[in-house]
Amino acid sequence: MAHAHGHSQAEVEARINAPTGHGYLRDLVYGAIDGAVTTFAIVAGVAGAGLSPAVIVALGLANVLADGLSMAAGNYSGTKAERDDARRLADIERRHLSETPEGERREIREILKQKGLSGDVLEAATDQIAANEDAAVRLMLTDEYGLAPVEPRPMRAALATFGAFLLAGAVPLIPFLLGLSDAFRLSAIMTGVVFFGIGAAKSIWSVAPWWRSGGETLAIGGAAAAVAYIVGTVFAV
Amino acid sequence: MAHAHGHSQAEVEARINAPTGHGYLRDLVYGAIDGAVTTFAIVAGVAGAGLSPAVIVALGLANVLADGLSMAAGNYSGTKAERDDARRLADIERRHLSETPEGERREIREILKQKGLSGDVLEAATDQIAANEDAAVRLMLTDEYGLAPVEPRPMRAALATFGAFLLAGAVPLIPFLLGLSDAFRLSAIMTGVVFFGIGAAKSIWSVAPWWRSGGETLAIGGAAAAVAYIVGTVFAV
Repeated sequence: MAHAHGHSQAEVEARINAPTGHGYLRDLVYGAIDGAVTTFAIVAGVAGAGLSPAVIVALGLANVLADGLSMAAGNYSGTKAERDDARRLADIERRHLSETPEGERREIREILKQKGLSGDVLEAATDQIAANEDAAVRLMLTDEYGLAPVEPRPMRAALATFGAFLLAGAVPLIPFLLGLSDAFRLSAIMTGVVFFGIGAAKSIWSVAPWWRSGGETLAIGGAAAAVAYIVGTVFAV
Repeated sequence: MAHAHGHSQAEVEARINAPTGHGYLRDLVYGAIDGAVTTFAIVAGVAGAGLSPAVIVALGLANVLADGLSMAAGNYSGTKAERDDARRLADIERRHLSETPEGERREIREILKQKGLSGDVLEAATDQIAANEDAAVRLMLTDEYGLAPVEPRPMRAALATFGAFLLAGAVPLIPFLLGLSDAFRLSAIMTGVVFFGIGAAKSIWSVAPWWRSGGETLAIGGAAAAVAYIVGTVFAV
């Protein structure tokens, strides 16, 4: 994100008026890791059964689509629950502001004190915000309830999950799609590369170096994939 | 959450000092829906193969554990990415505050203006916050970047996902565990009841009535489960 030194007042205003939140970082990482683990488990389950590569790819793709859809449905509903919760709390605060303005004024004052205001400025700022219903409700949602000031977008979150799940989930199938020999071993290696890649990529939004973030994600995803592999092998019996 | 009218100053302070965020609402709903869909798909895949109920339960539980672990790994890493992003942005803002204090002061002023302050109060409040590094960084994280003021907890988020996935995912297995006749049909009905129940329960945190939230979640989960059922049946061939 571009930063403000030397930027014009208009640029500062534009950015402050449209904060973006974390975007879909969590959804993408979550979906990609689960997609790679799940498909690898399917591959592990069917590869031992001596099926043709074409059948493995068909089964793998069908399962990736079905499981990605399930994840998208779960994330859509979960994110919508979070959005609905914010709207419910906004309604409650709006009601309290008209029913018990003195209690709400005390809350606003305490929030602004926590934000670093004191003395006459604190009292005057409390009066200004208490007199502005929208401003008061927004302040209490973030600072009384701890919500992000950006409203969650359930459909976009679901699409991010679905896309990341499909993309990462397709990778363990590639050696079978290409009909390579020793496809299962290649699939395991490529799944590991995906985990490392997810970790290295997300280090862009972190102070951790890429190799440590990559290594950590490889360890976490690899452990989950190992468990799924064992279960997948049992499943194939 | 209890509310403030008539509550003491100490109670107001305690609540304002420890906002909780949305908690784990999203993680629980997300995990529960995916758990029910996934297990139902496994049951659909193996029930047609004429396996004994004990084998179906064993395969189902193993898969629920493996898939729940995969979800937990994904959510842990995704939530950690969000937390790391917040820490990275805090470092950036701290640096900017010491390098380009005038630009940061303009941002703080714009944020406080958006919050409803104006005139002399706006200028004085800007001075107070600009003079307090921690307060300035916190203000910019929520209002420049749109982040929640509550730091995400990756391990707790992962455990919420895992628990919800396991609990909801165990339900489609119950008719097989009890050795009931017509177990698959019962499993389908109970999976539907779980979807409706998740929706009805989450309406507590919504202004939507329980039956509408329940019906919507039943429709979404049911559609995902239907796709998974079809894929599960193909998978069993």
